[in-house]
Amino acid sequence: MPDDVTDAEVEHFHGELDTEAEAGGYHLNPDRAFTRELVRGLLVNRNRYGYIACPCRLAAGRREDDLDIICPCDYRDPDLHDYGTCYCALYVSADIRAGEQKPEPVPERRPPRTERKKIREEREASSAVAPALAYPVWRCRVCGYLCARNAPPEICPICRVPRERFERFM
Amino acid sequence: MPDDVTDAEVEHFHGELDTEAEAGGYHLNPDRAFTRELVRGLLVNRNRYGYIACPCRLAAGRREDDLDIICPCDYRDPDLHDYGTCYCALYVSADIRAGEQKPEPVPERRPPRTERKKIREEREASSAVAPALAYPVWRCRVCGYLCARNAPPEICPICRVPRERFERFM
Amino acid sequence: MPDDVTDAEVEHFHGELDTEAEAGGYHLNPDRAFTRELVRGLLVNRNRYGYIACPCRLAAGRREDDLDIICPCDYRDPDLHDYGTCYCALYVSADIRAGEQKPEPVPERRPPRTERKKIREEREASSAVAPALAYPVWRCRVCGYLCARNAPPEICPICRVPRERFERFM
Repeated sequence: MPDDVTDAEVEHFHGELDTEAEAGGYHLNPDRAFTRELVRGLLVNRNRYGYIACPCRLAAGRREDDLDIICPCDYRDPDLHDYGTCYCALYVSADIRAGEQKPEPVPERRPPRTERKKIREEREASSAVAPALAYPVWRCRVCGYLCARNAPPEICPICRVPRERFERFM
Repeated sequence: MPDDVTDAEVEHFHGELDTEAEAGGYHLNPDRAFTRELVRGLLVNRNRYGYIACPCRLAAGRREDDLDIICPCDYRDPDLHDYGTCYCALYVSADIRAGEQKPEPVPERRPPRTERKKIREEREASSAVAPALAYPVWRCRVCGYLCARNAPPEICPICRVPRERFERFM
Repeated sequence: MPDDVTDAEVEHFHGELDTEAEAGGYHLNPDRAFTRELVRGLLVNRNRYGYIACPCRLAAGRREDDLDIICPCDYRDPDLHDYGTCYCALYVSADIRAGEQKPEPVPERRPPRTERKKIREEREASSAVAPALAYPVWRCRVCGYLCARNAPPEICPICRVPRERFERFM
C-alpha cells in the first residue's frame, strides 16, 4: 500500500527537512501538527510518484511535468518574499516563525499548464544561446555572494546577514 | 540597565559567532581575552540600538544609517584581504590566526557621512536600473562559485579551496 | 622520512575530506580500501611538496605549476559530470556511490604543459580586463544560486535540489 507512511518516517523526514532548511537560511512552519501533515503528504507523494511533489497541488505524475512543484518548488522563494510563507505554508519567513507577522492566504503563482509548456520550451532553447537576463542579480554587500531572483533571500546563505545587506548588482 | 551584559552571554555569543565564522570560511581572532571584549561590545550595542553595531565605531543609532557597520560590516572582507584583519581585529585571516603574519593597524575605510549618503542614494536609484558592474566577479575554478568583490575570498565558501584557485570572470 | 604517513593520519584525513565533501554536495568513493590509498597518496604529497597534489598525476613540485592538480583539481567537476568520477575516482557521483552506475575509465583532461602555461598567462592578463564569459552561468530555479561551469553541479550547494532544477542564465 504505497500511501502507508508511518509516524516514525514522518518524524524522521521532518527532522531532516528542518536541519536542511535552517542550514540554508530557511524555516519550517513551527506549528508541528500542521507541518507533520504536510511532511506526510510529501512522503505519500514520494511513494506514489517517486518524488516529493507538493502536497497542496495536483501532480501530473510525470517527473518532467512536475519538476517545478517538487518540494521546495520553484515558487517558494518569491512566495516567502511576498507573503511570508510558501503556497502550502510548509516554509515560513523568520517574522512568521517568530509570531511577529500573521500568515495570509497565498494565491497560486504556478502558471497554467499550457503556459508552463511554453516556458519549458523557451528554457530548453535558451540553454544553447544565453538569453537576456531573466532575473535581477543581487549582491551581498558583506561577502559578495551573487544570486538571481526577483528579490534577495531572507538571509545570505554564505555569511548569514539579512536581506537589507543585499544590493542590486545586474 | 541596557549595557549590562553577563559573562555567560558573552561566552555564548562568542561561541555562536565562532561556529558561524568557521562554517563560512572566516576566523575570529584567537586572542580570546581581546575577542571577548569585542563580543561584549557587540552585545552592549545590541541592547542599546537593537543591532550589533561595530564596537570600534560610533554608531548613529538609526539602523538605516548604521547598516554598513552592523557586524560583519561592509568593510570586513576588503580589510581582511588588504591587512589580514578587519578594522576591529575581530575577524582575522588564516595567516594571522596561525601566527604567520603580524596584525597591523587598519585605516578606516568607511567613507564620511555625506559620501555614504550619496552612495546610498545611488544604490537605491540603481535598484531599478542595472548599473555597470560595480565590482569584479570572481570564479572558483574548482566548483564554479561566483562572487562580486574587489578580491576573491580567502577560501571558497562552497568547496573550501583557497583564494589562489579563483579567477577573474567578469 | 617524508613519505611516512600513519594509518591514523589517513583515517583522520579521510574523515575530514568526507565531511567536507558531503557538506558541499560531493561524495567520496564508498570503496574504503581504495579511497584510503588515494588519501594516503594525498598525505604523502603534502609531506613532499607542501600541498595535496593529485595522487594519480605527476606533480612538478612547484605550487604555481601544480595549482590545477591540487586536490580537488580543476578537472574534478567536469569529470564527475561526464564520467561520474574524477580522474582518480576519489570523488564519485551519487549514482556511482549508490551502485546504480558503473565507474568507467576517465581520460586525462589536463592540457599538456605548454598549453597550461598559455592558459595561465591569458588568465593573468584577463585579471585586469574582464574577458568574454569563459563558462556558461547556471541558475538554481529554487534559490537563485549562480555558478559558472560547463554543466550545473549535481546538487545545489545552497538548497540541495538536484541538477535538473538548474537553468542556463548567461
